[in-house]
Amino acid sequence: MASPSTSQLSGAAVFAQSGGPTTVINASMAGAVLEAAKKPKVFTKLFGAKNGILGVLQEELFDFKAESPADLKNLKLCPAAAAGSCRYKVKTEADYARIVEVFQAHNIRYFFYAGGNDSMDTADKVSKLAKGKGYEMIVMGIPKTIDNDLGFTDHCPGFGSVAKYNATMVMEAGRDTEALYTSDTTTVQEVMGRNAGWIAASTGLAHRNEEDAPHLIYIPEIPVSLEKVANDVRDCLKRIGRCFVVVCEGVKNEKGEYLSEIGGDFGKDAFGHKQLGGVAEFLGSFIEKEVGVKARRNKPGTLQRNGTHWASKTDVEEAWACGQQAVRHALKGDTGFMVTLVRTSNKPYKCETGLAKLSDVANGEHFLPRDFMDESGTHITKKFREYLEPLLKGEVKVPMGKDGLPQYVRLKRKLVPKKCGEWKK
Amino acid sequence: MASPSTSQLSGAAVFAQSGGPTTVINASMAGAVLEAAKKPKVFTKLFGAKNGILGVLQEELFDFKAESPADLKNLKLCPAAAAGSCRYKVKTEADYARIVEVFQAHNIRYFFYAGGNDSMDTADKVSKLAKGKGYEMIVMGIPKTIDNDLGFTDHCPGFGSVAKYNATMVMEAGRDTEALYTSDTTTVQEVMGRNAGWIAASTGLAHRNEEDAPHLIYIPEIPVSLEKVANDVRDCLKRIGRCFVVVCEGVKNEKGEYLSEIGGDFGKDAFGHKQLGGVAEFLGSFIEKEVGVKARRNKPGTLQRNGTHWASKTDVEEAWACGQQAVRHALKGDTGFMVTLVRTSNKPYKCETGLAKLSDVANGEHFLPRDFMDESGTHITKKFREYLEPLLKGEVKVPMGKDGLPQYVRLKRKLVPKKCGEWKK
Repeated sequence: MASPSTSQLSGAAVFAQSGGPTTVINASMAGAVLEAAKKPKVFTKLFGAKNGILGVLQEELFDFKAESPADLKNLKLCPAAAAGSCRYKVKTEADYARIVEVFQAHNIRYFFYAGGNDSMDTADKVSKLAKGKGYEMIVMGIPKTIDNDLGFTDHCPGFGSVAKYNATMVMEAGRDTEALYTSDTTTVQEVMGRNAGWIAASTGLAHRNEEDAPHLIYIPEIPVSLEKVANDVRDCLKRIGRCFVVVCEGVKNEKGEYLSEIGGDFGKDAFGHKQLGGVAEFLGSFIEKEVGVKARRNKPGTLQRNGTHWASKTDVEEAWACGQQAVRHALKGDTGFMVTLVRTSNKPYKCETGLAKLSDVANGEHFLPRDFMDESGTHITKKFREYLEPLLKGEVKVPMGKDGLPQYVRLKRKLVPKKCGEWKK
Repeated sequence: MASPSTSQLSGAAVFAQSGGPTTVINASMAGAVLEAAKKPKVFTKLFGAKNGILGVLQEELFDFKAESPADLKNLKLCPAAAAGSCRYKVKTEADYARIVEVFQAHNIRYFFYAGGNDSMDTADKVSKLAKGKGYEMIVMGIPKTIDNDLGFTDHCPGFGSVAKYNATMVMEAGRDTEALYTSDTTTVQEVMGRNAGWIAASTGLAHRNEEDAPHLIYIPEIPVSLEKVANDVRDCLKRIGRCFVVVCEGVKNEKGEYLSEIGGDFGKDAFGHKQLGGVAEFLGSFIEKEVGVKARRNKPGTLQRNGTHWASKTDVEEAWACGQQAVRHALKGDTGFMVTLVRTSNKPYKCETGLAKLSDVANGEHFLPRDFMDESGTHITKKFREYLEPLLKGEVKVPMGKDGLPQYVRLKRKLVPKKCGEWKK
């Protein structure tokens, strides 16, 4: 790590959020912005990029100082990405050059970017390009992903909350299947995770004993044939009379084909297109036809990554700390790093922050270790349980409105005047 | 109402749960069982029917006194139906006779039945048959339905919680659509309700201003053409750049056909079968093809009716009170009634219990009043808002395990010895 600069770099800071929201990405932003606000001589302006990197490219920057202090504080418990996010992938040299152009125009010397692998890659390239142009700036990454698939960090902010919420939903809906097993024998619940099974596996925490859902978990890391699924369900029905299945959206068969996309009786619609719905619809339909029992399908979709009302307090605090630490490291002159979470003790759980190079993080993808699932491939192990439990601990108290619903903050996002020409895609 | 009997009827009591679970049906059961436990000379035994009326027909009765007092108390916050439920519809004379036979064999003199219209009909017929046979017994109904479609009661226990949870989920997922509107422009969320739109409409509470989801609500009481849906979505996109749609599973077009079942380009799978998935899949697919924007689909399914972690405290307390009052009325000799909720004041909200005849409730179905939706048919009115808000008030604190997840009770359900022959279906 770099030692503190003798002459502190001074200029505007921009904070941006990228990709799919998490329950705690706003906590990270609040942690970073409020920390930066303590040093107005260093961070002369505090900008947010409206809709992530698109906000930089389109020069849509808003002023955090125009937001109310109460709103900034309440960002800590607010679903989705309050600055706005996007799915735009920066690829061309022109785009990178445009980013640096906008930074220079607004004397932006600090770039704080919350996101996953792709965002860390973008941040890294921006950092290098600026350096190449002799434009001094500091770039820090803040880890964010429900998928928990970033390397170099014990876990990712966002994962604990999506795990807590999904596991609770599975526990609760599992009781529904249990109560109605005489008619609605099976339930298939689909959870997010395109390549990594962390989220699906985390619902296994709700399975404290044989009665508890989920009874079967399918993840991308462990390919599964439809034949095995049918047999697994039949076995479970024989044993306890019902079956609650959690399936990761990205689960594949041995040929590496997504179950939700394979052909045959179930995979296509009337036009030969990929079937509507996802893997839960597919597997539910398959189970009904193959095993001959009713299969309900739950697909919480985007609900699962925005469940602020049931966030993990541990996750919220760690997300906040990651944002705060990104700013503290920037103050020390560190650049080109992502803040990481380092578990220093598990009993009692203790977690500190560390740093990883953006370029390292950009290329890593962290899959669920095989020994976090048992031999059957459908249940979690004690080892995973011990890893997971501390991340879910603690509940939050969201601000409530008079109507019995949460009162989440919405930023004004007042844009600052543009200084560059229009962005040409 | 009957006046107190001079000689109090004494015998066993049976408590049964029917149909789809709600977040608070166990609160009602706990309220009833614990109230009955105070009068052991009247209620000589406290039985639960395992899986609703099937438990009576199959003579699968369990002893509440064999459960731990702590478990009975914790039933108040426990998802689904802890005694077990079923979807069996009692129709034949033989079935009704069997029910009375089992009651007589166990000297069951009190029958407490929590359910909706069908269950109240069953309870009513059992009551009349017993009377016809000269078997003295008291039958009381406890209202239960997330659908809020029972007549003769201001609202139904279970509705406030499903409304609070769904509205919160829509609010939270709405922020996701808002954050990602540059790529994921629309979201369609499907909520329960086969014939009545109470649940879908209740999510409208989250729409505090134009920015807030939901932006469009479709309910069965207001038929809608696909053309209107497409136009509504286009208008909304033009206005705010994104659109969050809540659709009730039972929404129909002007011909009375379920949208999820109509034919054409979207309604059938490769085999001409009804399309997999529900109306959210259908509408999402329709919007993508017709409006040309990406449409995400969320289908919380059974999650929505089991969200004990986010139950309405008001709902839980009222559900408990309904169970308790059913027993208190039974002690007074009242029979053939369902407990109702009577709102005596709205500001401040005050609610008492009353009684309605089982036979009246059995035949009523309470749809969403037209003036609870505005002229467009896609937004709620102030009138509905005022009706709804008090029902969602207050949060609960569910018991938590050491693993960061709720610790819900599971009854032992120890069956008592059978006294009758086998049930012949």
